[in-house]
Amino acid sequence: MPGSAPDRGALFAIGGREARSGDAAVLGHFVSLCGGPAARLVVLTTASRDPQKRVREYREAFRSLGVEQLSFFHQDRRGEAEDPALLAAVDRADGVFFAGGGQLKLVTTLGGTALESRLRERHCAGLHLGGTSAGAAAMSAVMIARGQGRSSARLSSVRMSPGLGFLPRVIVDQHFRERDRFGRLLAAVLCNPSMLGFGLDEDTAFLLDPRDRVSVFGSGTLTIIDGSDLEESNVDRLPEDAPVAFAGMRMHVLSEGWSYDLAEGRVQAPATEPVERRPVVEALARPRAQGDQG
Amino acid sequence: MPGSAPDRGALFAIGGREARSGDAAVLGHFVSLCGGPAARLVVLTTASRDPQKRVREYREAFRSLGVEQLSFFHQDRRGEAEDPALLAAVDRADGVFFAGGGQLKLVTTLGGTALESRLRERHCAGLHLGGTSAGAAAMSAVMIARGQGRSSARLSSVRMSPGLGFLPRVIVDQHFRERDRFGRLLAAVLCNPSMLGFGLDEDTAFLLDPRDRVSVFGSGTLTIIDGSDLEESNVDRLPEDAPVAFAGMRMHVLSEGWSYDLAEGRVQAPATEPVERRPVVEALARPRAQGDQG
Repeated sequence: MPGSAPDRGALFAIGGREARSGDAAVLGHFVSLCGGPAARLVVLTTASRDPQKRVREYREAFRSLGVEQLSFFHQDRRGEAEDPALLAAVDRADGVFFAGGGQLKLVTTLGGTALESRLRERHCAGLHLGGTSAGAAAMSAVMIARGQGRSSARLSSVRMSPGLGFLPRVIVDQHFRERDRFGRLLAAVLCNPSMLGFGLDEDTAFLLDPRDRVSVFGSGTLTIIDGSDLEESNVDRLPEDAPVAFAGMRMHVLSEGWSYDLAEGRVQAPATEPVERRPVVEALARPRAQGDQG
Repeated sequence: MPGSAPDRGALFAIGGREARSGDAAVLGHFVSLCGGPAARLVVLTTASRDPQKRVREYREAFRSLGVEQLSFFHQDRRGEAEDPALLAAVDRADGVFFAGGGQLKLVTTLGGTALESRLRERHCAGLHLGGTSAGAAAMSAVMIARGQGRSSARLSSVRMSPGLGFLPRVIVDQHFRERDRFGRLLAAVLCNPSMLGFGLDEDTAFLLDPRDRVSVFGSGTLTIIDGSDLEESNVDRLPEDAPVAFAGMRMHVLSEGWSYDLAEGRVQAPATEPVERRPVVEALARPRAQGDQG
């Protein structure tokens, strides 16, 4: 469960297709979080079937944001997740970023490896984790492995599997509005109403800070599906392809400047007065890594 | 406002594309409501640009359900809504059914005419009103005149205008899942959170009885969007095409056998035990019409 864990690093989940050139605003918030241009970043292209393309894109994006200390790692086999050079890079990093691709590829390759343990350990001690698309979906304890886009909830439209578990109470879905995934996220939450569904549009991110505050950045919205007041549902008694019926689902839609308290389940709107453009994310203090030379 | 009005007729709204041949189950519920095969029905094809096609379809459908006393009327000009033969048919009818087409055509042709007054008067005295697609949308006091299907709420995706007003607190949208209209109905409710949004899938109907109980029939679902607990929204402060943010929207999705108390805002699920197939709608008692020979 998330909770007060002031040493923990932040999570920064992006709904896919964030701008990687121009001002790359969403990625810029991740860089600011990790300390700005001086940040040491590790990019994992594990989820991708075309890692060279990802390396080119993120090298250009992070360099344009002033980041110089950048390393890329890719794993196709589980053994590659034991690479000492990779583990050492994680030890020195301020942030680790999971590029997109397939979340099953990501989790089947990294789950239970030395890299996964090291990420978890370092995240508890302050390492920030970012990810886009598959890299965001895989952060959940229960992730949506695949499923069809449709606007109504049906069990047949979602396949769930265990994720990396950095975000235990939340199921993250990405490309949310663009691929019409409201129904599959609803179905996932209906299967266990204690989970929150977070649907991220493309070029849109949420930051979960160590005090369990969720803030939204980017051009789209974060849709939150909250089943904690659910009164009725027939999801357990229906054929898989029948539309599910239910009562009392709560829904929030947040755009940039809005935030959500994960512990309290409360939304905070920005001030109603015209507000100044928010400053970029400020770096969250993190304990320096062991053996840190920087 | 709806309320206890035991003499009032029922409303029967269909989300479009209901089966018109075979067992025509959804239309069968409307016929049962009006008294079964002995019912005297008037079908108004006003919304349509191809009334002959509608006449053929509904003649076949209602005859296959055993209805013999069936009359069809069409109006393209407002003057045609003053036709004494039409008004007399309404006086004798147990039910009046609005076929589909365009809701603006329907409302601009009938709004403020003698026919509209007569329908309202007779409905208060027990006449049942049915409608599909445009004929369902036009029942609201505020109707969705047009708009784009998309899953997120934006003001630009909905154009509202005054409907016939048989259903004052509810905005009805149709072809709901099939045309991806969740966002436009959300936007409509966000504009005045005291309104309920009712999104009807195709081949799916709700019956509103005089005691303000809403029951669902057909193969799809009724989505209810309830803004009465809304905590925040920025719909009044945004460019029209920006995605709206909000907090605390409630949502219910009901399928056949589920019901909703419009006065109390409460959903009633069917018993969890495997239930017998529900009987068709029973005729609701209505005072006999003046001059009724039947």
